[in-house]
Formats: sequence, structure tokens, C-alpha cells
Amino acid sequence: MTWFQEKLYDHYAQTLSIEKVLYHWRTEFQDVLIFENAIFGKVLALDGVVQLTERDNHIYHEMIAHVPLMAHGSARNVLIIGGGDGGTLKEVLKHPVERATLVELDGEVIDLSRRYLPEVSGGAFDDPRATVLVMDGTRYIAETREKFDVILIDSTDPIGPGEALFTAAFYRACRTRLRPGGLIAVQSGAPFFQPQELENVCGRLAGSFAGVRPYLAPVPTYAGGMLALVAAGESRDALRPPCKVLRERCGPLQGRTRYYTPEVHRAAFTLAPSFEPFVRSDDPMPVEFLQTGT
Amino acid sequence: MTWFQEKLYDHYAQTLSIEKVLYHWRTEFQDVLIFENAIFGKVLALDGVVQLTERDNHIYHEMIAHVPLMAHGSARNVLIIGGGDGGTLKEVLKHPVERATLVELDGEVIDLSRRYLPEVSGGAFDDPRATVLVMDGTRYIAETREKFDVILIDSTDPIGPGEALFTAAFYRACRTRLRPGGLIAVQSGAPFFQPQELENVCGRLAGSFAGVRPYLAPVPTYAGGMLALVAAGESRDALRPPCKVLRERCGPLQGRTRYYTPEVHRAAFTLAPSFEPFVRSDDPMPVEFLQTGT
Repeated sequence: MTWFQEKLYDHYAQTLSIEKVLYHWRTEFQDVLIFENAIFGKVLALDGVVQLTERDNHIYHEMIAHVPLMAHGSARNVLIIGGGDGGTLKEVLKHPVERATLVELDGEVIDLSRRYLPEVSGGAFDDPRATVLVMDGTRYIAETREKFDVILIDSTDPIGPGEALFTAAFYRACRTRLRPGGLIAVQSGAPFFQPQELENVCGRLAGSFAGVRPYLAPVPTYAGGMLALVAAGESRDALRPPCKVLRERCGPLQGRTRYYTPEVHRAAFTLAPSFEPFVRSDDPMPVEFLQTGT
Repeated sequence: MTWFQEKLYDHYAQTLSIEKVLYHWRTEFQDVLIFENAIFGKVLALDGVVQLTERDNHIYHEMIAHVPLMAHGSARNVLIIGGGDGGTLKEVLKHPVERATLVELDGEVIDLSRRYLPEVSGGAFDDPRATVLVMDGTRYIAETREKFDVILIDSTDPIGPGEALFTAAFYRACRTRLRPGGLIAVQSGAPFFQPQELENVCGRLAGSFAGVRPYLAPVPTYAGGMLALVAAGESRDALRPPCKVLRERCGPLQGRTRYYTPEVHRAAFTLAPSFEPFVRSDDPMPVEFLQTGT
């Protein structure tokens, strides 16, 4: 059996058997490997790091898209930075948005994903509401005059080509491209292995947004138990509306999600006390817990 | 660098670097390997499968112990089947119980854990409320005349020595050893890799308990994103009391947990729609979600 060993951490690695290599080559920016694994189906790895698998990518894509879009409630214009596989775009287009713009640095990732992983985007690239731009996300944000209701930073890890998408300057620039009430969500790594990444994202977002909250999604192929995402906007409460509100907004998603529900939305923001260092303001949960003792 | 490769699944494995082997030998029942890893600290593997690590075992032990004990609210007599490392016993003894009995098949696992992983049990074996018996858990349940408020099945996977702890007959026998209002919690594997294990546990418990509910804990070293546990008792609601009730009961745990909180307790029972096959009765969550659409 041939094995793929992920190159992400020094003292821990996940290994997946390679049943069949579908594609392996270097683009202008990175090494791209697409292979089949008996458990996970098709797997996309960039620079030796698993980006998505056929079997579990819906958990990540649903949570990065539906949490901010449902928290917003009436997003019309959405921007995705990164996300060349089209999975986030597919989820965004399940909402009644007027327009979704995807800005991906590596055009070959889009082409290869459409060819080898068409079920991930599920036709989203052909949706008339979708605009796809192949360019650097930081340059796009600096140059565009457009304003958005929701911006999703669907990047790789903050090493290599994705690094510029994790700076305070980039988040500040994103803030200027949001309409009033606008929200941003950021992929922030596996906090168990990369706590510094989550701390950086939270701290840097807090420089531009009054409300910053991490939330969690369990994606089996992102080793480390839980993937962290961070949502930010004008207030913390806006990121986690009451269940009743989320349920009222849930019509367009009815029967079209496999992981996201209003209840999952709220539970994803429920963090263990060990996350307290990342919680930048008045999250009522740990405080109330600490005050409970008799 | 020397690597430990877990032998649990055919097409996926996690590998941990071995910085130092602390112990490696075969007991009467299984292969025991204890080693140091730079990320996880000390690691205990039985028959090539990671059972716990120094860094993340608290998540599992807190969730298997505190969820049923807090749901019960006034447990006095607690039984642990398995759990020879003493981590579950340590968490149980944080509650004002009168007595906790631990029944472990492999006495050498207790001795080795106390010697090489003393921080996992944290002195629990020396607590005057603790009774430790080295014997087969199924035989103990069949022979004891004692009754318990809470029974915790803290077993290995349902292969090898742990197999008999996953049968409907064993759960029926446990049911007879519970006082009125008594609860049971069962370690049920990683549902992403082992959905059949969770289905079996839920189905077999449903033969003896009116209320059966799976809940989730993200333990990084249990590959697969989420570990499932199943709680069962006389009613489903009793397993997940309102936050207010849990907070009132939380005094003995104040400042003594790193993962468990009343809010985490409730969030752990919030399951994605893909878990619906495991939900055996009227869990309001998915139903309400499905009825939300306009």
C-alpha cells in the first residue's frame, strides 16, 4: 500500500493510504496532489497538507459559510477570498444572495478542482450569481470599490501563499469593504496544534471589529480534534443570534445541509474554559460558570 | 526519529513520534506501550491503539464522568467498569459521592498507570472513597448485589478484551444494578470511522433504557474529529437538564474542570443532521429544524 503522510507538524502526522493518484503536479504557487482514499474518497492536498476530502469537506464549508450568513440574515453581496475548490461558494449560493465573488490566487486550483472534484463545487462556478477572479486577495481588497455584507477568508494555513491573508492590515482593509452590519469569518487552524494561529487571528481582528468570537467545527481530516473559525462584526451578540431567530431564517437551507443547523450554530460557539485566553471580551459562558459555585 | 503508527483502521493512521519509550511489555491480556511524544506528553497505547495522552485525556475523562453525574445531580454510589488509568475515577471523586468502585480486568494497567502516568489519576486510587477490584466487569455485574446511581463504561474499543462490555446482555445486567433515577454512560468510539459501533451501543442500550442519547467530545488523539459517548436512563430529558439546573449543581466542580461546563454539557448533545440515524426517539433538535422551512 502507498501512503500519504501529511507534512504539517513535527511530532504528529496523519497518514492516508493512496488507492489511486488522480493528479500530481506543481502549479505556479504550490504542489497539488489529488488522490483517492478508501475512507475519505477523493483528497486534495496542497504542499503536502490536506485541504479537503470528498467525505468531510461539507462540515467545513457549511460552517464557514452558513454561520456568518445566517447571523447576518439578509446578505446580498458576498466575497470569498481563497476557496478555489468552490465548496464555500456552493454553500453561499444556497442563500438568496444577489452576487458572490470568489477571489483565488491560484487559478489552477480552480481548474483542477472543477475537473477532479466537481461534486465539491456542485455547479456553483456556473451559477449566474457567481463571479470568479484569479488574483491576489490582498490586492483585490485594496483595489475594489465594491462593498459586501459578508466576507469569508477561506484560506490555507498561514504559511506560504496564504500568509498575507492573516495580517491585521488585511483585516483592516476588509473592514472598509463591509456594509453596515457586515460580518467576516476567518479559517483559523486547529487550536490544539496551532493555538498561536487562533490567538493571532482573534487579536488582529479585534483591532478592526468590536465583536470577535471563535467557533468550532469538527473536521476529521483536519487533525487535532477541532478546527477553529473566527467570526467578527459590529457586536458579539450579532454573531450568535437566538435559536428562534436562526430558525426563522433557515428556510433556504431546509434539507440542504448535512452538518449545519441553528442549534449547531449556537453550540459551535460554546467553548471550554481552556479557550478563555482566546475570548476577547464579555463572553457570558465562562464567567457565569465561574460564578456558579456555592 | 522513531514513529508510533496506530493500528486501528485499514486506510488511515495517525503517527506520533516516540521521543522516549517509558515501558513496553505484554500483560496477560494485551500489549502495553507507554512513550513520550513532544506534543502530547506521555502516551498510553494498548494493543497498538492510543488510549490516552497526558495532554488531552482530561477532555475524555471529564465528559464521561461529569455529564452523567451532573445530569443525575445527587449520585452517592458510582461504578466504573474499565478505566484502569484512574482518570475517570479522579473526575468522579470531584463530586460529593460516598463511594466509587472501579472494576478493571487488567491489574497491570492500573499498576503501570500509577507508576508512569500518576498525574492522570492524581491520587484517586488512594482516596478512602475508592474501591478497586481487578476482575472481569461482566462477572462483577452478574455477581454484585450492590446498586449504583451512575455506572460508567470506560472501556477500550469493542475488539479484544473490551468486547463483552458492548453487548445488550451486559447493558441489561447493568440496568438491574441501578437505583431509581440511575444513569449509565458508555464510551462508543469515533462515529466518523466507526458508525456501526455507535449504532450498536444506542440500539442495545435502547433495549433496557427508555432514554438514550449520544453526545460528543473532541479528543485530538482519538482520530476522527469527535468521540461519541452515549448516556442512558429513565428519560431522555434527564440526561440534558436545563443550563440553570446544571449551574446550580456545579459548585463541587468550580475551577476544577478544563473542558466541562454546564454549557458544554448541553452543547455536546447538539448533533448534526447526519447523526439522525443514531437518535432513537424524540430528539427535538432535528425535527424542529426540519419544520422551520417556509
